[in-house]
Amino acid sequence: MITREQIKYIRSLQQKKHREEYRCFIAEGLKIIREVIASSRSDIEFLVCTSKYRKQLETDFSIHELKIIEASEKEFSRISNLKTPQEALAVLRMGKQANSTDSINKGLLLALDRIQDPGNFGTLLRIADWFGIKNLICSNDCVDIYNPKVIQASMGAFLRVRVRYGNLTELLPILKEKQGFTIYGTALNGDSIYTEDYADNSVIILGNESSGISRPVMTITDRQLVIPNYGAGKEKTESLNVSVAAAVICSEIRRRK
Amino acid sequence: MITREQIKYIRSLQQKKHREEYRCFIAEGLKIIREVIASSRSDIEFLVCTSKYRKQLETDFSIHELKIIEASEKEFSRISNLKTPQEALAVLRMGKQANSTDSINKGLLLALDRIQDPGNFGTLLRIADWFGIKNLICSNDCVDIYNPKVIQASMGAFLRVRVRYGNLTELLPILKEKQGFTIYGTALNGDSIYTEDYADNSVIILGNESSGISRPVMTITDRQLVIPNYGAGKEKTESLNVSVAAAVICSEIRRRK
Repeated sequence: MITREQIKYIRSLQQKKHREEYRCFIAEGLKIIREVIASSRSDIEFLVCTSKYRKQLETDFSIHELKIIEASEKEFSRISNLKTPQEALAVLRMGKQANSTDSINKGLLLALDRIQDPGNFGTLLRIADWFGIKNLICSNDCVDIYNPKVIQASMGAFLRVRVRYGNLTELLPILKEKQGFTIYGTALNGDSIYTEDYADNSVIILGNESSGISRPVMTITDRQLVIPNYGAGKEKTESLNVSVAAAVICSEIRRRK
Repeated sequence: MITREQIKYIRSLQQKKHREEYRCFIAEGLKIIREVIASSRSDIEFLVCTSKYRKQLETDFSIHELKIIEASEKEFSRISNLKTPQEALAVLRMGKQANSTDSINKGLLLALDRIQDPGNFGTLLRIADWFGIKNLICSNDCVDIYNPKVIQASMGAFLRVRVRYGNLTELLPILKEKQGFTIYGTALNGDSIYTEDYADNSVIILGNESSGISRPVMTITDRQLVIPNYGAGKEKTESLNVSVAAAVICSEIRRRK
């Protein structure tokens, strides 16, 4: 059975400073645990589940070497980060952080500038994965990828999309000048995404949910794009959600291949 | 100042049965109130705000005939539906419900089949508005459009997009046979959205967040479409969020005009 110390430890991982201290984070739910085990990219420290799932976890995975800790429903609800606790979670060790732009794949990239909402960040990972984008570059003030809500919203995409944090005003010029990427930003007065001739190596910058792309980052862009608004009249929706906009742009680029 | 009875009344509007009883609903935040006042499509029963916003509301709108009730911050937080109360809300009278498919505009329509999450529903309204879609058809078991979280997530789009609830297995055949619409559904084994030749009058059906389009509704579709998945390997993101998928499809249809 789970100990009081273990409960305290798992709960502490909801905070970034403790995740960084222990180099561990949480992924909750059977589906996500299945994906983690199927993937070799993350290391499992241990699993926690209620008696309801213990047998299932042991048979499904035949993972005798994995440490499984049992918790009561009440204990589980104390460590869960969800409104509806999933009764199974994994404590995972963080992967090594890429620290060079050399390790970034050519092709299509997303750069996130101050994305604050964990749900949006997770959805952006899921969209990147769907459209075959291998790398995400994030400004240091983006939400932490190991935030439990990001992990949850990413639906397992955090296992497949590599995320590199840094200063965009340093990273983007390197990609542009040394590696030949074209840098695209979104702006209200930009050119239509439908008529743009996209470069093979492209970075699409997506800006903060309320204030958009910051000025110093915008000055680095080669091209500014807009998703045309088909709403009529003076009163119309002023913006699309950042993940919705990202998906529309990625779709437009991918369909041309 | 706000009375205890008024607080009770406003709080009651968080529940569908009371919204239907009083034929009223809530929209919170200065921005949304501005849009409501600018639009003639909704009737305002009264406004509630803290002293901080009273003067602003009165000057901004020169709406002397509008009833404004003042509440303390503490009282406001009791009636607010948001984590961060906006200190200004409007109680609005519901518009008349369209009750004939004759009143549905030709062109592009969305049909929502059992969309449960109010955030998704609101985002879908916002996407419809962005892509110039005037009508949404919703199965009776979709979340209520007057749910405060739908109103909030729609960012004012609820004022511009007309929503008709009904039985999709009755409404869609009428649109198809009497009005010449082509009915599109999304399915994993469908044809690529990028190669489809869309009809001028099209209905795109979007299905429930976890179970997709229900079987009886799927049998009505003329064509089944899929957004190609560019993820590589066995493990990849299995689906896109319903509002993300809607935006990608609407964008693909609109760009061709």
